[in-house]
Amino acid sequence: MAKKIGVVLSGCGVYDGSEIHEAVITLLAIDRAGAEAVCMAPNIDQMHVVNHLTGEPVQGESRNVLVEAARIARGKISDMAEVKADDIDALILPGGFGAAKNLCDFAIKGPDCSVNAEVARLILEMVNAKKPVGAVCIAPAVLARVLGADSLEHEVTIGTDAGTAEAIGKMGATHVQCPVTEFVVDRKNKLVTSPAYMLAGGVAEAATGIEKAVKALIDLID
Amino acid sequence: MAKKIGVVLSGCGVYDGSEIHEAVITLLAIDRAGAEAVCMAPNIDQMHVVNHLTGEPVQGESRNVLVEAARIARGKISDMAEVKADDIDALILPGGFGAAKNLCDFAIKGPDCSVNAEVARLILEMVNAKKPVGAVCIAPAVLARVLGADSLEHEVTIGTDAGTAEAIGKMGATHVQCPVTEFVVDRKNKLVTSPAYMLAGGVAEAATGIEKAVKALIDLID
Repeated sequence: MAKKIGVVLSGCGVYDGSEIHEAVITLLAIDRAGAEAVCMAPNIDQMHVVNHLTGEPVQGESRNVLVEAARIARGKISDMAEVKADDIDALILPGGFGAAKNLCDFAIKGPDCSVNAEVARLILEMVNAKKPVGAVCIAPAVLARVLGADSLEHEVTIGTDAGTAEAIGKMGATHVQCPVTEFVVDRKNKLVTSPAYMLAGGVAEAATGIEKAVKALIDLID
Repeated sequence: MAKKIGVVLSGCGVYDGSEIHEAVITLLAIDRAGAEAVCMAPNIDQMHVVNHLTGEPVQGESRNVLVEAARIARGKISDMAEVKADDIDALILPGGFGAAKNLCDFAIKGPDCSVNAEVARLILEMVNAKKPVGAVCIAPAVLARVLGADSLEHEVTIGTDAGTAEAIGKMGATHVQCPVTEFVVDRKNKLVTSPAYMLAGGVAEAATGIEKAVKALIDLID
């Protein structure tokens, strides 16, 4: 049986959803490892919609996270509320502002952020079941908030930005500096994190770190 | 100087725009080859918007091809009307229904389709300048219409579907059967085509063919 890797999407586009390159590279690395991607997203409205040509928020437009994430998943995606840790062997969160705007509100509230209830539930189910959880780019902030709120000591990387590192420290994470083409493993909690577009100058740099992180994540499955 | 490879996007999502996996794999293969991707899209409304969760068209919603394509390009994208063959060394069109709905209307009119004027202009400029042009998945239908209308004999692949192959034959192309992990080269016109999701059962299969096609495309640059 192929290992099932849950992939948590947060929309479709770096400024208001999942970072598309990171999401696709994650799906490709999973498929090339002979594992099966199980895409999911919360069935909620996006925090906002950003015009990716201008970088400006679009007034008066609303998009649903699950519906937009379905674009990356080619329609094969589940409402996150219906996925349990029993259904998958590992979980990974690609980055993009959607991780910090839709999966939680870290982009606005920093270390005082709240995490979507279904996202928090599934991450905790996985950690408690000793199943590995990965996060890329800004998404380790979601892990930091969820594990920190549960008083679980844990190590992640979130690139090299001092302010972001300080913020995840306040949430209870220990930040580890990590180059873009590498990843950090917290063996105790089975966490794998990689900086990707927190540091990457281009898609190839992001890909190298994500490919290694996905392999490490799958290797951590019992 | 890095070679500049124009990447023609047609929106963001397989059912109404660019096939996202194909587009990202193309960008990654270009970056890994040491070349530079120059993303572009026509500045027009999409034919329609499809809810990728349900597969159904959304009534009353309109999205712009260039604005949505900017999601894949992380905002670094040009209006196709502003790009000339002199600006780039090669051109490639990823697939997705956007290629057959927005770059042309092949999805509705089949061999009687019309091609967007800027798309047709740039493809002909490239072919006349002996610069290589690639197309993936359903996008070879665009090449077939443009080159066929100019009475240029040419060879492409569009997977194995007999009806689609017949349609591009009517437009003046010679269809060549090709497995998903391979590609077809028309050396006379410097065309490179690969079936990708016309045949692929998963993203890894699509990637193998696209990676080879991008390498072949770059090798054809004088």
